Amino acid sequence: MTTPASTEGEISRLEQIQEYLDQDSWREAAALLRKLQPAEIAHVLEALPLNQRQILWDLLETDQDGETLMELTENVRNELLQNMHQDDIVAATEHMDVDDLADFIQELPSNVTEEVMRSLDEQDRRRLETVLSYPEDTAGGLMNTDTVTVRPEVTLDVVLRYLRQLGERVPRDTDQLFVTNRDDKYLGTLRLADLVTNDPNETVAEVMSLGVQPFNVFTPDSDVARRFEQYDLLSAPVVDEQGHLVGRITVDDVVDLIREEGEHQFMGSAGLSEDEDMFAPVLESSKRRAVWLGINLLTAFLASWVIGHFEDTLERIVALAVLMPIVASMGGVGGTQTLTLAIRGIALGQLSSKNAGYLLAKELAVALVNGLLWAVVVGIIAGIWFHSTDIALVIAAAMIINLIAAAIVGALLPLALDKLGIDPALAGGVLLTTVTDVVGFLSFLGLATLFLL
Amino acid sequence: MTTPASTEGEISRLEQIQEYLDQDSWREAAALLRKLQPAEIAHVLEALPLNQRQILWDLLETDQDGETLMELTENVRNELLQNMHQDDIVAATEHMDVDDLADFIQELPSNVTEEVMRSLDEQDRRRLETVLSYPEDTAGGLMNTDTVTVRPEVTLDVVLRYLRQLGERVPRDTDQLFVTNRDDKYLGTLRLADLVTNDPNETVAEVMSLGVQPFNVFTPDSDVARRFEQYDLLSAPVVDEQGHLVGRITVDDVVDLIREEGEHQFMGSAGLSEDEDMFAPVLESSKRRAVWLGINLLTAFLASWVIGHFEDTLERIVALAVLMPIVASMGGVGGTQTLTLAIRGIALGQLSSKNAGYLLAKELAVALVNGLLWAVVVGIIAGIWFHSTDIALVIAAAMIINLIAAAIVGALLPLALDKLGIDPALAGGVLLTTVTDVVGFLSFLGLATLFLL
Repeated sequence: MTTPASTEGEISRLEQIQEYLDQDSWREAAALLRKLQPAEIAHVLEALPLNQRQILWDLLETDQDGETLMELTENVRNELLQNMHQDDIVAATEHMDVDDLADFIQELPSNVTEEVMRSLDEQDRRRLETVLSYPEDTAGGLMNTDTVTVRPEVTLDVVLRYLRQLGERVPRDTDQLFVTNRDDKYLGTLRLADLVTNDPNETVAEVMSLGVQPFNVFTPDSDVARRFEQYDLLSAPVVDEQGHLVGRITVDDVVDLIREEGEHQFMGSAGLSEDEDMFAPVLESSKRRAVWLGINLLTAFLASWVIGHFEDTLERIVALAVLMPIVASMGGVGGTQTLTLAIRGIALGQLSSKNAGYLLAKELAVALVNGLLWAVVVGIIAGIWFHSTDIALVIAAAMIINLIAAAIVGALLPLALDKLGIDPALAGGVLLTTVTDVVGFLSFLGLATLFLL
Repeated sequence: MTTPASTEGEISRLEQIQEYLDQDSWREAAALLRKLQPAEIAHVLEALPLNQRQILWDLLETDQDGETLMELTENVRNELLQNMHQDDIVAATEHMDVDDLADFIQELPSNVTEEVMRSLDEQDRRRLETVLSYPEDTAGGLMNTDTVTVRPEVTLDVVLRYLRQLGERVPRDTDQLFVTNRDDKYLGTLRLADLVTNDPNETVAEVMSLGVQPFNVFTPDSDVARRFEQYDLLSAPVVDEQGHLVGRITVDDVVDLIREEGEHQFMGSAGLSEDEDMFAPVLESSKRRAVWLGINLLTAFLASWVIGHFEDTLERIVALAVLMPIVASMGGVGGTQTLTLAIRGIALGQLSSKNAGYLLAKELAVALVNGLLWAVVVGIIAGIWFHSTDIALVIAAAMIINLIAAAIVGALLPLALDKLGIDPALAGGVLLTTVTDVVGFLSFLGLATLFLL
């Protein structure tokens, strides 16, 4: 992939706004803002430090507020909401799609939620309640309720006339219509491409597609994403337990999901949330980071406690103190590679207890090959450095031990965590490096104590 | 997000095939295979160890080969291609879309490529050459050449009759048609939703949309992905330098891109490629991992060399050897958080030299807050452990120094690497931990040498 820094268009718009704000040219900034789409505005807001972000937010016209809020990452959105008056929040929601409303109404304080609900008409309120009745991370929570349905017995000509009647009420991103019977039971889909390329005298039943399997409302969102990806879907129907059509999921929501899933693994490995705001307030950031640092500090002290048992040995052979970080860190590096493969394997649904054994076997083999190779290299360098074949042998042995231990933990830990309901993307790295540190120091200093004293 | 391990449907199909293979029930496995879609078959293949994978691949019907090859990750695909006869490869390509063919024809040895080209008809060959003339990671490399175009002056009724004539030649995933003039210059788009909801007597010109900005053929793929995401696009036109329509990009390709981008960052931090095959041959894996381990070994020896300058100090105060890994690792943990934020910021186009200063300022502030907090905690624990306020003060000071250095490097390094054309997702972590190790050991042991001897 191309290095993404060369995003010319966005960076220059962003930079332009930053320059206006730096020079206090509010009017120029506001003028430029009005030309931007909500998604672009959100992009700019996320890239501004807090004071400038608040200024720009206040410069925004009210009718742009709602859609822009939808495009922001959760944390940034919540920060802005906290500083808004209740009336402004309700006003912002007036221009919002019911389906978008469902996504963020849960973030609002309950009095504001009640106010917003009251401002909706009967039908919208019922639609909102439908979507809200399902957990956020399921098909029911993801879906839109703006489906266009047709009966199977009508001709395509009738469908076309019906659509012309509906006019603007047909969503612009429609790629297929849904076929239902009189009881709203889902029967199949009618692609627009099929609608326009077949003889208008054919019936829907003759042309419709049965290939698309509907999602049950409780399908986990990661399964939804995976299926959209595998089948290159643009939209898909959602049905309830009895098979009634209740909504549709569109690919743009899945795109966001997939982006988040990738970020979750990447950010998680550093103890961050995928919703992390680059410019969150210092104290808020510090609190969250402090927890992560605290946990890692515990594991660091655990490693030190292990080293502490070998104070005698270290006093007598100071070369050990110089060399010991090498064994520990190589185990961490090797183990992290195995761990990363396993975490991704679980996320993609390709690693389970069924084939974990094969992964372990393969990773052990790789660890053995690399262990022997680098044990020899490290042993030679250490031996020459400290003029001692004993030290060379000890460090070589410890290297192999640690790389093997790392492979075992890396391959099996993620599945174990997953079965315990702990997110491997978050906890895996910390636990792995704890093991490789402890095993690294233990094996190196332990072997040294046994054979060099 | 729901923990993805509960992907019931896929895991059970996968497990079923694994069981069949374990029991040597080839016929049952083959029968189950025929019921699966190419994407599902690819998913299963990627999750099998090598021997079983080859068996399953051989069980596959030839007409399923081509599409399945397209769905596989690059590394898995190449491994299978290596073991295939030239004739089988050409046969597999017969059923492939020209646009899919473009994606993998570059992986093939040149004699096979020539053979495949010869098997195509004139028009397909020219389409293939068009797509191949652009770099893989640009809009031109991503696009499909199967566009359906209409003139602006015709009525919607004429368009519908034209589409009925085209019939099957209209791609099933069509969501919009492209409007061009007689010279093939791109003018705008006609959404199918607009086509079917407006009065058939209106002209294309009256109904078409100008809102979609076409991509230039040389637009980097990450920009394409970003714009699809921001504007919730389903498809978009691609034009050459003179504004002629040359193809279209569909959202399914972007979905793959976004998945890869996320995996690239996650896998890259562990020195792996996003195309990494979980079950790659042991020797091949070992070679790639050996390079990464070698690089990290260099940095580990660098840190040891720094420690080596303080052998005297370590001999006299062995407590230092016990405590020194703490300072180094805390710097690494804190710095990695900053680095991760910066890498994501660059990938999203939100971090540039323009606002890097703000990020640095904020991360320094967070580092100061956490530095002070944990310096006190660590100082107290170390002081009690070794009955020495001097050691407590030295380690506290070193903690603060290292956390600050980590914040500076974490915030600025990714941008610097990016400007040098080095992938920060790959190189950032290694370089950061090198700095935090060196600074950690240097500050801790250096301060100890100055004040405790």
